[in-house]
Amino acid sequence: MERISKLQQKLKETNASWAFITSTANVFYFSNFYSNPHERLLAIVVLPNDEPFLICPEMDVNQAKQAGWSYSIVSYDDVHDPWHMLHNELNRRNVQTERIGIEKSHITVSRLEQLQSFFSHASCFDLTDTIHELRMTKDEKELHMLRQAAELADFGVDVGVRSLKEGKTELEIIATIEYELKKQGVRTMAFDTMVLTGTNSAHPHGVPGMNRIQAGDFVLFDLGVVLDGYCSDITRTVVFGQPTEEQKRIYNTVLQAQQAAIHTCQIGAPIGSIDKTARSLIEQEGYGAYFPHRIGHGLGIDVHEYPSMNATNTMPLQAGMVFTIEPGIYVPSVGGVRIEDDVYMTEKGPLLLTTYPKELQII
Amino acid sequence: MERISKLQQKLKETNASWAFITSTANVFYFSNFYSNPHERLLAIVVLPNDEPFLICPEMDVNQAKQAGWSYSIVSYDDVHDPWHMLHNELNRRNVQTERIGIEKSHITVSRLEQLQSFFSHASCFDLTDTIHELRMTKDEKELHMLRQAAELADFGVDVGVRSLKEGKTELEIIATIEYELKKQGVRTMAFDTMVLTGTNSAHPHGVPGMNRIQAGDFVLFDLGVVLDGYCSDITRTVVFGQPTEEQKRIYNTVLQAQQAAIHTCQIGAPIGSIDKTARSLIEQEGYGAYFPHRIGHGLGIDVHEYPSMNATNTMPLQAGMVFTIEPGIYVPSVGGVRIEDDVYMTEKGPLLLTTYPKELQII
Repeated sequence: MERISKLQQKLKETNASWAFITSTANVFYFSNFYSNPHERLLAIVVLPNDEPFLICPEMDVNQAKQAGWSYSIVSYDDVHDPWHMLHNELNRRNVQTERIGIEKSHITVSRLEQLQSFFSHASCFDLTDTIHELRMTKDEKELHMLRQAAELADFGVDVGVRSLKEGKTELEIIATIEYELKKQGVRTMAFDTMVLTGTNSAHPHGVPGMNRIQAGDFVLFDLGVVLDGYCSDITRTVVFGQPTEEQKRIYNTVLQAQQAAIHTCQIGAPIGSIDKTARSLIEQEGYGAYFPHRIGHGLGIDVHEYPSMNATNTMPLQAGMVFTIEPGIYVPSVGGVRIEDDVYMTEKGPLLLTTYPKELQII
Repeated sequence: MERISKLQQKLKETNASWAFITSTANVFYFSNFYSNPHERLLAIVVLPNDEPFLICPEMDVNQAKQAGWSYSIVSYDDVHDPWHMLHNELNRRNVQTERIGIEKSHITVSRLEQLQSFFSHASCFDLTDTIHELRMTKDEKELHMLRQAAELADFGVDVGVRSLKEGKTELEIIATIEYELKKQGVRTMAFDTMVLTGTNSAHPHGVPGMNRIQAGDFVLFDLGVVLDGYCSDITRTVVFGQPTEEQKRIYNTVLQAQQAAIHTCQIGAPIGSIDKTARSLIEQEGYGAYFPHRIGHGLGIDVHEYPSMNATNTMPLQAGMVFTIEPGIYVPSVGGVRIEDDVYMTEKGPLLLTTYPKELQII
């Protein structure tokens, strides 16, 4: 498998004994097996010069094979110690353990301590960035899934906008959106769907509830699906009824900021410049204090992944990156507007994966 | 707040300088603020002899206050370093940092390293079990929410069973269940709802898809909701059409094992005895090899929490514990049956929070 070969190459270059990969996302990336084993251990061990193996709860073994894992599997039930079995397997293969690559941004301190209790003379180094960099540029197959996930996100917003009606609750609209998405074959949303109405939309991380749609409300939709392990993430905001001049001004400021930010996306441009472009436009309109978050985040197997699209990131944009662009203005007494698209960087410039219309819709 | 006082007492007893609490569940337990900040830092710092404070992304500050956090908040935006601000706040309060209590089962190695870079002379010790023990026995308010969450899980199964129809897909049935639950005000499911039909039910962690209900299928429902931060978790299995003798035998074996396991739940009995009771019954019927998981898990703010209900756990059952009892038999060519209830331990014995009927239903 090409992804494992690439990691093996990195392990050779850094004199690593083996890599211990335990995050759901990275296990999926290297095995095509997507599983959240909760507190149970699920891990891929990648060796620089030998075949990798999977450590897997016994009850999930068949699914790992069905997903396409063709190398060996060390399985365990709830009364056996997977750490012990890991140690035995490495002994069986005569592996000398000196440097273990781990995901420091994922692995817990207690798991590290368990690892160290079996490999007390080994040192651990961080593979997080190495794997993030592998994952950062998406291949054709990944792009295909991200595009389909984005299409379903567009569809979800469309269902939501069409189901708006005075007096309906935020949760009723979410129920309709997710019902229609499930009928399309969507198993999992990428995160809890948000429909926020009126002043509730003024919370960037708002919690939907029994608030009812009223005339003059901003209604903000933020949703995404997981399709074959890949996420989408879209935000659109509409006005239910006649907007005030202030609402129009807020909306148009966000829209202009978002479009300007997208235009900034060119190969080689520093990532931080995207945030700065949007922020300075929003500041010019006097709303700087109401834009309290970064412009976006990388998108892929995780809904928030590498790179972070914040103002201080100096990394140049590369072809194959996928990320969100999502400026917002949140005025407590008025409500919030956020507009978010998923962007795929091509050699020729930014390509929008989400395509739901963005001009101000008055419902 | 009583929960914080209890933790402060533990910190005094162990000579801790302060506790650094970062898991979503524990932050909620101590603050009533439920928030998944993704890669951003959200933490409660509890000091043995001073008021606690919250470290919180700026955009979530209002929601933390609305949730009831009345102590001070150290907030930061995406370009400031929260670790630096933590350090400053402790300096401002003249705190001597020698021993830091952390959640070793939650905190990542990279966060530990960031903490150690600011407090290089301090040692870290594990607070996981201390906090798990506080959380393990539920108070009246928690029981109230767990009971309501369980009622909604019963309702979800009822919706699912009523919506069964030949040719419908697993995902269509899930869509109906979640739609009706959302209309009842449920914002979040406790985990991805499972509806598994036919041989797909033979996977303990099966993945629902476009499989269609057919005559003679086992249909397994496993679902739960989150209500005000507390989870439910129920499993029921029915037969669509006429069951074979083997299906009846599998079903009745699981049902008897589940009932026997529930009867084993008495104050003071070792937790491991519950699993053993169910397992020996299943083994007697010759299905031992098809019951590859423990009998259950603790339930509360997390859908899987302390204690683990496995065969080797010698901890005695205590009043106030809440956990699942969920034996299963999974025969690859036939299908799987699992029956799961949420159990609250009272001084008088086990009380079932989930109450949906368990006799074999033939739909």
